Amino acid sequence: MPDPAPAPLPAPPYYVVVFTSVRTPGDDGYGKRAEEMLKLAAEQPGFLGVDSARDPGGLGITVSYWRDEESIAGWREHTEHTLTRAYGRERWYKSFTVHVARVERGYGYTRPDAGAGQVREPAAAPDPAAAREPAGARGTAAAT
Amino acid sequence: MPDPAPAPLPAPPYYVVVFTSVRTPGDDGYGKRAEEMLKLAAEQPGFLGVDSARDPGGLGITVSYWRDEESIAGWREHTEHTLTRAYGRERWYKSFTVHVARVERGYGYTRPDAGAGQVREPAAAPDPAAAREPAGARGTAAAT
Repeated sequence: MPDPAPAPLPAPPYYVVVFTSVRTPGDDGYGKRAEEMLKLAAEQPGFLGVDSARDPGGLGITVSYWRDEESIAGWREHTEHTLTRAYGRERWYKSFTVHVARVERGYGYTRPDAGAGQVREPAAAPDPAAAREPAGARGTAAAT
Repeated sequence: MPDPAPAPLPAPPYYVVVFTSVRTPGDDGYGKRAEEMLKLAAEQPGFLGVDSARDPGGLGITVSYWRDEESIAGWREHTEHTLTRAYGRERWYKSFTVHVARVERGYGYTRPDAGAGQVREPAAAPDPAAAREPAGARGTAAAT
């Protein structure tokens, strides 16, 4: 497994979906399904990347990036995803919020001794490939 | 400490700043300063809420919500925050990305047995107080 790193920076405009949740106790099939959903999301048209973190026993945040509203709607209406969301409300989540937002600017930083440049700027053109990280990038399968 | 819960839902439009980072090894004063920064951010004009999660030893995501671009700029230019960011680049972060985005819609869910309603909708008017969670809300100090 490569070192973790934030998802690569696409060129704006693009969209971000912020999913913030608190889990019910126990796994109850959650881990396996969450992994399947990440993999499936990465195969959808317009998917640009994803980052996810969960405090042990606490709050989790998953941030996914999408080319446009159309690709967000497509993923939202995907049958497997719809069924999983219904199951999630029923079993896995104590509470959650979803925020859909239009990204206006993005920038990044990688330590010089981590083998990449210093300040990362997004690509000038809306070309996900041009903003791709050389190593350690996550969730870029569908952006290639 | 109250149970964790996602930050309350303001009425759109508002802004979200997504800070995704990978830490260098060791604490090196990070934990204390991160706590101070969260407290200071919550005192700034236009602050609406914050959620934060970090995988053990991995990726961390902090999502903060702001009334407008002006309040984001105000916090960005705050002296203590500027100094802390410089220190962070020097010591604490292996890599990070920042995305600034305009929230177009938001919704939430709380389990009925968790003592609140089912589907949460944002307030119709831009009144953060109307969207406040009855219990377990985080980061709402400055929204009162």
